[in-house]
Amino acid sequence: MPLGKATKGLQEFFIIIVGCGRLGSYLANRLSRDGHSVVVIDVNESAFDALSAEYSGFRVEGDATELAVLKQAKTDKADLAIATTRDDNVNLMVSQIARKLFRVPKVMARVFDPKREEVYRALNIETICPTSLAGDILLKSIMESSGIQKK
Amino acid sequence: MPLGKATKGLQEFFIIIVGCGRLGSYLANRLSRDGHSVVVIDVNESAFDALSAEYSGFRVEGDATELAVLKQAKTDKADLAIATTRDDNVNLMVSQIARKLFRVPKVMARVFDPKREEVYRALNIETICPTSLAGDILLKSIMESSGIQKK
Repeated sequence: MPLGKATKGLQEFFIIIVGCGRLGSYLANRLSRDGHSVVVIDVNESAFDALSAEYSGFRVEGDATELAVLKQAKTDKADLAIATTRDDNVNLMVSQIARKLFRVPKVMARVFDPKREEVYRALNIETICPTSLAGDILLKSIMESSGIQKK
Repeated sequence: MPLGKATKGLQEFFIIIVGCGRLGSYLANRLSRDGHSVVVIDVNESAFDALSAEYSGFRVEGDATELAVLKQAKTDKADLAIATTRDDNVNLMVSQIARKLFRVPKVMARVFDPKREEVYRALNIETICPTSLAGDILLKSIMESSGIQKK
């Protein structure tokens, strides 16, 4: 596993982010700032407005479920792909294509419907469900019940 | 701080949940199952379809920014209120009303725009931002870079 142009002891990755909404742009800005090479794909050009001035990666406008678009983003060279759109079907399809056709070593997907997580696991795709994550943290805070005084 | 009808050593709370979307229904189902008294408020009656068969709390259909609706939900008796709608302005308004007018001891709000968190803090309202939460966990996973092999 070569270290690439490692700086500060950290590896630099080539990362494809599909979807430039709140989650996608948050990740793109942070990862680009941290020195990784990032390509963001979104169907809407206006979505790229969410990228910060610090973002130094590429923008690809197009439907990431189309092979040509993923090829244009150089997905075959990617170390990591993250599917962050609001559509579970798009995320699943893009993840599968990245994994199976472009042999991306690590693929992560946002998932809205937790019932789908099993499918992802079977396909070796890491998932994250923001809603249940937030729910669990709120529940934990409630259970610890700090600051709650029974009326 | 009286323990209420404590079972299994846990306190039972009277909890108002505003918004019955993915996050709201997730919390309502879990908290109701755990023995808390829950009231869910949503403007759309169809949103209540997301409540599970186990949910034994009340449903209030209406706009939670209206005092009459919060009164109907018995917010004055609540130990805890959680604003989970997709609208930051609604969540902020409901949180303030619950805190200031109904004197709810603990109020939590989902926030989409992290820039608003300062306002919430000043008002003594706990916030959670699912997007940045998910983003941070994904970033952590990337930094640990388990399973990533440089191409």
